[in-house]
Amino acid sequence: MKFSCEKALLQAAISTTSRAVSPKSSIPALEGILLEAGSDLRLTGYNLETGIRTIVPADIREEGTLVLGARLFGEIVRKLPDDIVTFQSENYMVNIKCGMSEFNILGTDPEEFPELPTVEYQNSLILPQSRLKAMISQTLFAVSDNESRPIHTGSLFEVDSEGLTIVSVDGYRLALRHESIDKKEGAETFSFVVPGAALSEVEKICSDVDEPASVTQGARHVMFKVGDTMLVSRRLEGEFLAYRQAIPRNNTIHVEGDTRALLSSIDRVSLIISDKLKSPLRCVFDSNLLKISTKTAIGDAYDECPLSGDGGGLEIGFNNKYLMDALKAAPADKVRLELTTGVSPCVILPTEGEENFLYMVLPVRLKAGE
Amino acid sequence: MKFSCEKALLQAAISTTSRAVSPKSSIPALEGILLEAGSDLRLTGYNLETGIRTIVPADIREEGTLVLGARLFGEIVRKLPDDIVTFQSENYMVNIKCGMSEFNILGTDPEEFPELPTVEYQNSLILPQSRLKAMISQTLFAVSDNESRPIHTGSLFEVDSEGLTIVSVDGYRLALRHESIDKKEGAETFSFVVPGAALSEVEKICSDVDEPASVTQGARHVMFKVGDTMLVSRRLEGEFLAYRQAIPRNNTIHVEGDTRALLSSIDRVSLIISDKLKSPLRCVFDSNLLKISTKTAIGDAYDECPLSGDGGGLEIGFNNKYLMDALKAAPADKVRLELTTGVSPCVILPTEGEENFLYMVLPVRLKAGE
Repeated sequence: MKFSCEKALLQAAISTTSRAVSPKSSIPALEGILLEAGSDLRLTGYNLETGIRTIVPADIREEGTLVLGARLFGEIVRKLPDDIVTFQSENYMVNIKCGMSEFNILGTDPEEFPELPTVEYQNSLILPQSRLKAMISQTLFAVSDNESRPIHTGSLFEVDSEGLTIVSVDGYRLALRHESIDKKEGAETFSFVVPGAALSEVEKICSDVDEPASVTQGARHVMFKVGDTMLVSRRLEGEFLAYRQAIPRNNTIHVEGDTRALLSSIDRVSLIISDKLKSPLRCVFDSNLLKISTKTAIGDAYDECPLSGDGGGLEIGFNNKYLMDALKAAPADKVRLELTTGVSPCVILPTEGEENFLYMVLPVRLKAGE
Repeated sequence: MKFSCEKALLQAAISTTSRAVSPKSSIPALEGILLEAGSDLRLTGYNLETGIRTIVPADIREEGTLVLGARLFGEIVRKLPDDIVTFQSENYMVNIKCGMSEFNILGTDPEEFPELPTVEYQNSLILPQSRLKAMISQTLFAVSDNESRPIHTGSLFEVDSEGLTIVSVDGYRLALRHESIDKKEGAETFSFVVPGAALSEVEKICSDVDEPASVTQGARHVMFKVGDTMLVSRRLEGEFLAYRQAIPRNNTIHVEGDTRALLSSIDRVSLIISDKLKSPLRCVFDSNLLKISTKTAIGDAYDECPLSGDGGGLEIGFNNKYLMDALKAAPADKVRLELTTGVSPCVILPTEGEENFLYMVLPVRLKAGE
């Protein structure tokens, strides 16, 4: 194998594919990046769950394949001067030259690198990268980390004529984002569940630009394509929560508040709460005012946040982290909180326009003195 | 105790004094900050080695003292809105109010807080903060962490009519910085050794401004004063290395190079070296060229850096980290390297002007094949 390419482009490609490389594995090849110099130069990282492949513009003089340890390979290329990098390998020994620098390092047999699954085309959709990125990041936090219900360790992608809906749920809260898409192919409606770990990488691969990203659903896998980069993940199998039935929509109390002001108030009261000293937030929805308080062995804290609307004095308890996660994710300066009783969920929605997000947080029981 | 003050000023004072607070101590008061409301509001942190005291402008309505846990106190004040904070304590319970936020937390008995040592005035000097900060940061890295020679776990401050010289040494290398000072009081010449841990805090307290900092040497302690903040540390006792005799000054080889280019070359070759796979740098000083190479189980690396001057082909081994530390600290774009043989130290100096820095790195033995 012999090729040369620009240092900056190679560095970007290593950084992208490294995201799917196992940091520590019993199979040494899985700690590496597969380099394939053919008609183009392809770099692949694959941890058996998620695979990322990207193409680097390169001048290929001799075809070949090799696996290089991702960490060392990445560090060497990062520290090389901004110049053309030349690679030449014989057996598993690779010579890397750039400017006045030269390295000889040992690679691994590419035969030991597992093959990326192929995604048999079923259905697909196209939407701007920036939109996909935002939708993922604003729902990913509610994905469950409880492996006893594997289906909820991923997010549901639901596609219909209205667009794409992404839903995450973990038993204590629910996050939903809805947006229109540019194009849809295949079935009238389709849905699939993507593991949270893969979505976390898709989010990083997408940029804040309007260039398109495509999502292709295969029989057992799903593929995301963003520019020259492709990510493949297995789909999660099982029955996802029938979320529409789970969300109460005839709530009797509607109040509106400033997202950042709500967050600041909750954040301050939360100072008294720690992993060791847990306590729910006691929220009282008064007329145009939310009173938040809590009490632990450290002391007590009280805060107020102005709202518009009358909560009728409803008292309800919340896990501070769950409420903050939802408010942090909500892509709006103002939000509407819908409530009914002290034992029914709180639903967080936009105050106006299309209902493009919905967060639901279940209440926790308040004990006297908390 | 009852007082009110500006949130931002209080936050800055907590952040400064927290540096001298023990993160974990068997005496709970040592994990706290002492608040003393008298004619002014004083905050003190003291971990029995280093003490930091600072003054906060405050409106004091009732005098008193209290100790508050530094971590919680700091987090509460940091998250309060930008407004006037009101404190009111009764026994050890303190009520903190700011805007619509209110906290009640428990403090500790101030009687349990150890008294800061008083520094009996002997000698003192004054120099700009920015200069003191730079001198400390450019020598601190060479302080020894070997407790078997406690005197070398600090830096030597030597004051004479020429100014201030700070020297650190750890048995493998030496760092020296010299600068003029604004004012000197007391003895004609004097010297003392300040613990590295205290200097690390002094460096952070000093800003990049020309406002003066004063250093006062007491019989057993040393005091740094920077604006409204004062740091007290015990002095290290013992015999510091007679460093002037240790530095070879009649070196036969003089070469000059670009500091950043030298650093980049060494940094790249060092990629092959890790904590587990140690190997010295093999440096060959040729005519106008430094060749650097090394070899470990990972592979081998080679780099070149242009120099001006002839090294006559001298081959010498160095610990990569020690050479990089010195070059990173050197406050100059170009440096002069002085060498004599493969077993004598390398001295790093300015290429021109006053000799305001000197770094010395001892060589390491090269084995065949390294």
